[in-house]
Amino acid sequence: MMDVAIIGGGPAALSAALNLKIRNKDFILLGGNEKVTGLMKAPQIDNYLGLKGMSGTELLKGFREHAISMGVEIRKEKAYNILDMGGYFSINTGNEFYEATSIIIATGQGKAKYYEGEKEYLGKGIGYCATCDGPLYRNKSAAIIAENEEGEEEANFLSEICSEVYYIPAYRTEPKLRENIKLLREKVNAIKGDGNRVQSLMTDRRELQVDAVFIIRNIIPVNQLIEGLELDEGSIRVDKNMAASIEGVFACGDCAGKPYQIAKAIGEGNVASLSAVRYIEKKNIDNNVNT
Amino acid sequence: MMDVAIIGGGPAALSAALNLKIRNKDFILLGGNEKVTGLMKAPQIDNYLGLKGMSGTELLKGFREHAISMGVEIRKEKAYNILDMGGYFSINTGNEFYEATSIIIATGQGKAKYYEGEKEYLGKGIGYCATCDGPLYRNKSAAIIAENEEGEEEANFLSEICSEVYYIPAYRTEPKLRENIKLLREKVNAIKGDGNRVQSLMTDRRELQVDAVFIIRNIIPVNQLIEGLELDEGSIRVDKNMAASIEGVFACGDCAGKPYQIAKAIGEGNVASLSAVRYIEKKNIDNNVNT
Repeated sequence: MMDVAIIGGGPAALSAALNLKIRNKDFILLGGNEKVTGLMKAPQIDNYLGLKGMSGTELLKGFREHAISMGVEIRKEKAYNILDMGGYFSINTGNEFYEATSIIIATGQGKAKYYEGEKEYLGKGIGYCATCDGPLYRNKSAAIIAENEEGEEEANFLSEICSEVYYIPAYRTEPKLRENIKLLREKVNAIKGDGNRVQSLMTDRRELQVDAVFIIRNIIPVNQLIEGLELDEGSIRVDKNMAASIEGVFACGDCAGKPYQIAKAIGEGNVASLSAVRYIEKKNIDNNVNT
Repeated sequence: MMDVAIIGGGPAALSAALNLKIRNKDFILLGGNEKVTGLMKAPQIDNYLGLKGMSGTELLKGFREHAISMGVEIRKEKAYNILDMGGYFSINTGNEFYEATSIIIATGQGKAKYYEGEKEYLGKGIGYCATCDGPLYRNKSAAIIAENEEGEEEANFLSEICSEVYYIPAYRTEPKLRENIKLLREKVNAIKGDGNRVQSLMTDRRELQVDAVFIIRNIIPVNQLIEGLELDEGSIRVDKNMAASIEGVFACGDCAGKPYQIAKAIGEGNVASLSAVRYIEKKNIDNNVNT
């Protein structure tokens, strides 16, 4: 059982990792796809005190180097789902399950715009992780809607299992797909079903009969990541210690609300990690008293 | 009328200044005594993301250089008192009065331990600024209790006005005082009076008959700085936008509560300044609509 799982690999996550390392906690940092961050697009940032006039890419590189030099391991795995096991958490990364006493969510701005039908059929044919749920659709047909290249690997995996795989990218580069995958450059309008299960996907050009739809977003919407997490205007509701509404869960950075600023994210990452340390240490004392 | 007065010169204050500069706001930063900050004592700081293994002194130097390079002027003046004028604020720095639409308090940890009698006789013989109130005590006797060398200048000033000046330093270095000032290396136990006015100062060795006692602290206690500011466990109570209980007043950094961390201070300074910008811009729009 690890002490903490940090979900995210941006400034808030890396800032949190520093304190956990300094405080000798056992943790993992699930950084996901490192190319996916709005920060990379900023040409010049002048308001992070002490580091003037650097680009977002340079800043993030320096942040990562700092964390790595302190012994932090940045894993490229992505958390798809976190289960509250009552006293600890189970984190599903598609290929692995991890267990941790507490969670720090630092997944960035989750500006997810849901597709029509998405919320209704989530878990009833719609999923966010083909590697996780794909085996349920052996010899059936599936569509993948992908915001980034991660979807390609998912599609290639599905193509070995499913009878038919459609790939609908929401990005410009040319996907590298197996021959039996049908690439569609179309706009998704809705996901439809019979009330119990997904039956089809409507694009601006056609209706595809499918049994499953996988949506590969840059960021998993936080309320999909862990059930029952209270939100406030779409962001994770936190108190001043960055504690979220579920005991043992902390949040920091853009996913915890505006303003979307590096300095705020790093400050919150610091606070969240110290709160997590306090939570773990209290829990350890309580456990020792009880046994 | 300035847009903002930033009270403080540490990481939170400097971080706030960056955004105000970028957003073209008219502001002053009253940095006070730059030698006075706990940060200077830190031999090595590893948890401010992007700048690893620097001493507190080096970090602070880099922070100041960043702010100065952006055109921020760091004034050595200290705010003694802020008056809420209804819609704007008046800031007393001893020698000057400034007016600003909003205030950002970033004065650091105000761990003031009050002397016995201090709260009772504040404004009735006890003051925090000899330059401000000294002239009221012409030909009378005064004592100065000083946590740092700033008190020396205050004492020398008083020695030209008062009949007798006692100087009680709470620091080790040898004060540079005029000859007619009596240096006492004693421990202050209490300040006494007749219920209306200060009458004497009790040390561990004697009772000094005095009409005035000036207490020169490293940091002015926030509830003395501005009246009516609500506190929470001794720190300024703020919401998630760093707004304090008085409209137009924002707080950030150690004075806004634990944890006492650079990253948190800088993040909060960023948030406080953006909130102040929003406050000012809204106020300007309202004023334009009304006229």
